[in-house]
Amino acid sequence: MANSASGDSVVDRVVRVVAAFPEGVSVLQLSELAERAELPLSSAHRLVRQLADHGFLDLGASGTVRLGMRLWELVNRNAPTLALRQAALPFMEDIQQVLNQNVNLAVLDGWEALFVERLSRRGSVANRARIAGRMPVHVSSAGLALMANQSREVQAEYLGQFSDPGGKTSVVVVRQLLAESAQQGYAQLAGVVDPDTWGIAVPVMDGRSRAVAALGVVVPLAEMRLQALVPALQTAARGIGRQLGKLRQD
Amino acid sequence: MANSASGDSVVDRVVRVVAAFPEGVSVLQLSELAERAELPLSSAHRLVRQLADHGFLDLGASGTVRLGMRLWELVNRNAPTLALRQAALPFMEDIQQVLNQNVNLAVLDGWEALFVERLSRRGSVANRARIAGRMPVHVSSAGLALMANQSREVQAEYLGQFSDPGGKTSVVVVRQLLAESAQQGYAQLAGVVDPDTWGIAVPVMDGRSRAVAALGVVVPLAEMRLQALVPALQTAARGIGRQLGKLRQD
Repeated sequence: MANSASGDSVVDRVVRVVAAFPEGVSVLQLSELAERAELPLSSAHRLVRQLADHGFLDLGASGTVRLGMRLWELVNRNAPTLALRQAALPFMEDIQQVLNQNVNLAVLDGWEALFVERLSRRGSVANRARIAGRMPVHVSSAGLALMANQSREVQAEYLGQFSDPGGKTSVVVVRQLLAESAQQGYAQLAGVVDPDTWGIAVPVMDGRSRAVAALGVVVPLAEMRLQALVPALQTAARGIGRQLGKLRQD
Repeated sequence: MANSASGDSVVDRVVRVVAAFPEGVSVLQLSELAERAELPLSSAHRLVRQLADHGFLDLGASGTVRLGMRLWELVNRNAPTLALRQAALPFMEDIQQVLNQNVNLAVLDGWEALFVERLSRRGSVANRARIAGRMPVHVSSAGLALMANQSREVQAEYLGQFSDPGGKTSVVVVRQLLAESAQQGYAQLAGVVDPDTWGIAVPVMDGRSRAVAALGVVVPLAEMRLQALVPALQTAARGIGRQLGKLRQD
C-alpha cells in the first residue's frame, strides 16, 4: 500500500479521519478534523472529498464534515451484531413490557462491555439514540456476566492485565465478583452512571457454554424485587440463545 | 492518492470492501468479498488485514469477514442522524404509547426515504433491528411528506428525473400526490410492503419551512381513526422541530 511522506498508509489515514469524531459529536469543521486526524489540511481535504464522493462522509458548503448517510446505512444494514439483535429484540420487548424496566444487551469487546441495544422503560427519560456505549468489565453487571462465562484462558488474560488506575478495585475483588457471578448465574452491581440504581445482568450462552452476550436491566435502588427479576431475565436469555442457534443453522 | 495497476485508488478499494456486504448479510467469506469488491484475492486479503488491524473489519480464523465492532461503534456514536434521533425518540415513544402504533422516522436521501428509527407497537412482530431501510419517495407516505415540503427547485429536479420502471405511476400522479400532501399537511398511502396497512406521515419542519424528516405510523387498513391520528403526529412533529432548533443552538 502506498505510504505518505510520514510513512502512514492511505488505509491508516482513512481510519483516522472516520475515527476523528469525538463521542457523540456528529459535525466537525474540516480544519478541526484535519487536526484530530493528524493530517495536513490539504491531505485531509483531498481524503474527505474522496470519501464524500462515495457517501462515506458528507462535506458541507461551509466546510463542515459529517459521517455520510451511506456509511451509516451500510454499517447498520450489515451490522456485526445484526443476528444477535434480531434474536434478542423480541425477548427484550417482553422484558420491557412485563417488568417495565430499562433493558440492555451487551457484548464483550476487548475488556469492556459494549452495549449494542437498549430499550427504555415506559415513561423513563432514557434515550436509546445513544447506543454503542462502553463500560469496563469490572464496573458493569453486563461486563461481569460476560466475563464470568468466558474460557479460563480469557479470564486469566483479563485478570493478568487488570489494573484500576483510580485504585478503588483490586484484582482480588474482581476475581471474587466473577466467581460469584458464575456461581449465581447472574451479576449485580450498584449503578456507576447513576448511583441510585442497580444493574443486573445474565449471560446469553452459546452451545459451547460461553457467553456471547449479556442481557441486563437497570432498576432503581428502591426496587425490592431484584432477585425476582432474575428468572425472567434468565428465561429470556435462554430464548435468545436458542433463537441464535436456529439463525446460525440457516 | 496512490492508484493500483487498474487505476482505482486505495480509497475506492476501501469503500468497495466495506460496501461489499449485501443488505442484511453480516458475514462473507474472504473469497466472496474479493469477488464482490472486484479485487484480486491477494489485494482483498491485504486490505482486509489492514482494516482488521484498526477494528474496521473482523477477519475470522476460517476466512470469514464481518464489519468490525469499532466501525459499528464509531458510526453509531457519531451518527449523522444522532441529533435528529435524540430529539425525536421521546416524541416517538409518546406516539407509540398513546396511539399504540408502529412509529417511524425517515430522512430524504437521494430520491428515497431512508428510515433512521423505528419503534414497534406493543405486541407487534415488527423487529427494529432492521433499521436503515429505504423506500422510493412516490411509494411511501414518509417520502411524500418529505418531498412535498422541499424547495421548488428540489421538487422540480425530482419530478424531472422521475420514472417508474414498473410503469404503474406517472409523473402526473406523483405531482398530484405531492400537491395533496403539501395542502393537507400530511401524506397517506396504502401499504406497499404490507398491502393490509396504511402509512401516514407528517413532515418535521426546520425554521426555514423545509422538511428535515418525516414522522409516520403504519396502521391496519381496518383502522378507522386514520384522520384522528394526524393531529397527534403533527403535535409530535412540532415538538421534534422545536427540540432540534434548541439542540442546534447549543
